[in-house]
Amino acid sequence: MATQAATAQTAARSTGAKQEPDELDAHVFEQVCALADAAADAQQELGRANGEARNELLAVLADALDAHADEIAAANALDMQAAFDSGMDAGKLDRLRFDAERVGAAALGVRHVATLPDPLGQTVRGYTLPNGLRLNQIRVPMGVMGMIYEARPNVTVDVASLCLKSGNAVLLRGGHAAQRTNAATLQVVSEVLQSHGFKPALVASVDEFGRMGATAMMQARGHIDVLVPRGGAGLIRAVVEQSKVPVIETGAGNVHIYVDRAADLSKAVPIIINAKTQRVGVCNAAEKLLVHRDVAQTFLPVAAQALAQAGVTLRVDERSYEIVSKGDIQGLQLERATAEDWDTEYLALIMGVKVVDSLDEAIAHINAHSTGHTESILTEDYGAVGEFTERIDSAVVMVNASTRFTDGGVFGFGAELGISTQKMHARGPMGLQEMTTTKWIGYGNGQVRR
Amino acid sequence: MATQAATAQTAARSTGAKQEPDELDAHVFEQVCALADAAADAQQELGRANGEARNELLAVLADALDAHADEIAAANALDMQAAFDSGMDAGKLDRLRFDAERVGAAALGVRHVATLPDPLGQTVRGYTLPNGLRLNQIRVPMGVMGMIYEARPNVTVDVASLCLKSGNAVLLRGGHAAQRTNAATLQVVSEVLQSHGFKPALVASVDEFGRMGATAMMQARGHIDVLVPRGGAGLIRAVVEQSKVPVIETGAGNVHIYVDRAADLSKAVPIIINAKTQRVGVCNAAEKLLVHRDVAQTFLPVAAQALAQAGVTLRVDERSYEIVSKGDIQGLQLERATAEDWDTEYLALIMGVKVVDSLDEAIAHINAHSTGHTESILTEDYGAVGEFTERIDSAVVMVNASTRFTDGGVFGFGAELGISTQKMHARGPMGLQEMTTTKWIGYGNGQVRR
Repeated sequence: MATQAATAQTAARSTGAKQEPDELDAHVFEQVCALADAAADAQQELGRANGEARNELLAVLADALDAHADEIAAANALDMQAAFDSGMDAGKLDRLRFDAERVGAAALGVRHVATLPDPLGQTVRGYTLPNGLRLNQIRVPMGVMGMIYEARPNVTVDVASLCLKSGNAVLLRGGHAAQRTNAATLQVVSEVLQSHGFKPALVASVDEFGRMGATAMMQARGHIDVLVPRGGAGLIRAVVEQSKVPVIETGAGNVHIYVDRAADLSKAVPIIINAKTQRVGVCNAAEKLLVHRDVAQTFLPVAAQALAQAGVTLRVDERSYEIVSKGDIQGLQLERATAEDWDTEYLALIMGVKVVDSLDEAIAHINAHSTGHTESILTEDYGAVGEFTERIDSAVVMVNASTRFTDGGVFGFGAELGISTQKMHARGPMGLQEMTTTKWIGYGNGQVRR
Repeated sequence: MATQAATAQTAARSTGAKQEPDELDAHVFEQVCALADAAADAQQELGRANGEARNELLAVLADALDAHADEIAAANALDMQAAFDSGMDAGKLDRLRFDAERVGAAALGVRHVATLPDPLGQTVRGYTLPNGLRLNQIRVPMGVMGMIYEARPNVTVDVASLCLKSGNAVLLRGGHAAQRTNAATLQVVSEVLQSHGFKPALVASVDEFGRMGATAMMQARGHIDVLVPRGGAGLIRAVVEQSKVPVIETGAGNVHIYVDRAADLSKAVPIIINAKTQRVGVCNAAEKLLVHRDVAQTFLPVAAQALAQAGVTLRVDERSYEIVSKGDIQGLQLERATAEDWDTEYLALIMGVKVVDSLDEAIAHINAHSTGHTESILTEDYGAVGEFTERIDSAVVMVNASTRFTDGGVFGFGAELGISTQKMHARGPMGLQEMTTTKWIGYGNGQVRR
C-alpha cells in the first residue's frame, strides 16, 4: 500500500502515548464557529456572483495590494525584527519576508489567477435518463475552507485569491511569527471586499485566538467544510490526527529516482542533478537514488562525481559505498546511510543512494518508504515502464523526466493550493478545480419512481 | 453552509462531554493492521489483473454463491434464531434474513457488477506539455477499503463484488448479529479467490475481534486507505468522529420537497406520494413538505387527503394546522410539529409540513435543517428553478421530480456503495468510479525543469 512506513509509525504511536490536542476553550470554539458561519453566509453571495464579478474583484484586490504595499511591508518589518530577536534562522526569516517587492509579486499572482478558467458551473457529467429526467453533475464551491499554515505571508494572498476565484470563503490561521503582516494584508482584502459589495467575513483570520484558533477550526465540523494544512510534516500530521473536519493532506516528499539497468545513462545525470539541486527545499526535489546493480559499477561513479560537484552529500548503502569510495572523486562527501535515512525527507543538499538487485526490489523499496508524492524511473525498457508506472503507488510517476515537474503551474493549473499526497478527493497538484465539489441537478417534469 | 443543524450540534457537543472511543487493545490493533497489510499485498496483484480476469472472478463467485446457498442460509438461520431470542424487532429481523432465495438474488447482483464498465485505467485528463512531457491522469484502485456496517448480510456480497471489480481489497466489520452468516459467505469468497489464484486476504473480516475490530480499523491510518460506514446515523457519526483513517460519510436523508407558488399542483401530489411512500425506510424518501403560503390554502387540503389515504401521519406547523384541520379529511392523523421535527429523519410514514412565506425562506430552512442528501422543488417558474438549484447546498437537487431518484442504479452506475452526503471525493450516489483514486503518469524522454 502507498502509505508508508512513516504513517504506519504514526498509526502505531497513536495506540500508545496518544498525542493530546490542546484543551479547547468553549468560548473560543463558539467564536470560531461564529466566524465560520458568517463566512458561510458571505460565501452564499460569492458563489452566486458570476465569473466576471469574481475576476473583477481580484483585479481590484491586486491594485489595492500594490497601493498598500508599503503599509504591509512596514508591518512585516516589525514581524521580521521580532523574529530576528527571537533567534529565527536565516531560511525561515527569508520565508517570512514580505517587503514591497514581494507584495508586488503577490499582486501579480492575483492578476494571473483572475485570467484562469472559471471552475464553477462546469458540467462533469450530464445525460438524460430513459424517463426524461435530465441529470447534470456540476462543479460548485466547497463552501468554507480552513487553512492552517506557517509563517509565509505570501500564502495569505495566494489562498485568498484562489478561494475568491473558486467561490469559497476561507478562515486562515497563519502562525504567530507573521501575525502583523497577515493582519495588514487582511485589512486590505477586507476593505476591497467591503467596497465591492461583498462581506469581509469571506476571508477571515483566527489569529487573534493564537494556537487555540487552529484547535477550534479542527473541531468545527459542520461549520468548516474542508481543512488544508500547509507547512512542515509535524504541522500536517497534527492536523490530520486531530481534525474532525475533513482534511486534504498536503505533502511531504520523500521522492525517489530509480535508474534501471536499461537506462539511457546520458539522460540520467542531468535529470538527477535537476531533480536534486534545481531547488532544494521543495517537496518535489529528489531525495533518494536507487540504481540497478547491472549499471551500478558504470553509472554510480559518474553520478557521484556530478553530485559532488553540485555540493550534494551522499548517504549510501554498503554496495554503493564500495563502488563510489574506490574512485577518487573530488569534493565528494560520502556517509553511510542508516535505516532512518530511507524514510527521511532531507530538504537539503543530501541524497540517499542504494543499489537494488531488480526492478521488483526498487518498486518494493519505494512503496515501503515513499511518502507517495513523486517517483521517477529512468529506462528505455518498455516493460519496465509498464511495471513501474502501474505498481508504484504515488500521486505522480515520471518516466525519464525530472521529479521537479510535479507542480500545479507546470501541470497547467495556473496556480496551486498545494500537492495532495492522499488518495481521496484530490491526488497530486491541487488547482482551482480541486477546490470545488460537485452537485447533481435533476431537471424533470413530473417524474416519479416506478 | 450545507452541513446543518444536526452536525452543528454534534460539533458543539464534542467540546463538552466528548464521546470517548473504546480503549484500543494494542494486540488487536496489531492483528488488524496485519490483516490490512496482507490485504494491501493481495491488492497489488488484483490491481494488476486485467478487467477480463476480474470479471471472470466475479462470475465464478456468483456460481459459488449459488452452489453454497444452502450452507449460507443454514448459518443465517442460526443468526436469525439468536436475534429472535434476543428480542430483535421484525424490521431488523427482515434485514438480517439471508435465505437461499436472497443469496440467489445477491449472486445475480454479482453477475450484474461483472457487466459494468471497468473503472480502472480510464484517462481522466491527458495532454502534452510544451516541453514534450506527456501527462496522463488515470483511474487506479484506492487500495485497501474498510467497511463498517450493520446486520445486513447482503452488503457483504455487494461490497465484495464492487471491491473486486474496482481492484480494491476490503476489510469488513459486519456486526455481531450477522456474524455466522457473514463467516459462511466469506468462506465461499475465500475459496473462490484461492482456487482462482488470488489471495484470500483480499476480502477479510475483523468480526473475530468484536467491536474492537471496528475501533482498530478507525486507527489503522497508513494501513487502510478509506473507511466507509454504512448504517444508522449513530454508527456513521461515531466513525466520522473517531476515525483517523479518511472516511466517506454515507448519509442520512432529512429530505425536503418544496411546493413553490408557481407549482403545477397536478404534478405535485403524485410526486409527494411517490417520494414519501414508495419505499419508506430509505434515505431518499421525503421527510418534509414545505408549501408556499400563496398556494397553501388550495394545495394543503388536497395533499393532506392524499397523504392520509396513504397512511401518512402529518406533523405540521401552526399555519398548516389551521388550514388542514378545517377540512374534514378522512383518516387524517394530524400532530403539531416540535422544533426537533425539522431535524429528524423519520424513516416512517410520518411527514413534517410547514408553510413558508417565500422561496428564500424555503431555501434558508432547507440549508439549515437538511442533511445535504436530496431536495426537490416543484415549480414552473424559471427563476425559482435557478435560485433553488443554485442555492440549495445538497448532494442532489431535483426539479419537478421525486426524490426517490437519488440512487446509483437509477443514475446509471449499475450498483452503488452508498450515497455520500459529504463534499470531498464523492458527493451523491457512489458507484465503481467513486471507489477509485487517480494517479498522474508523466512520459518523458529526458526532460528537466528550467
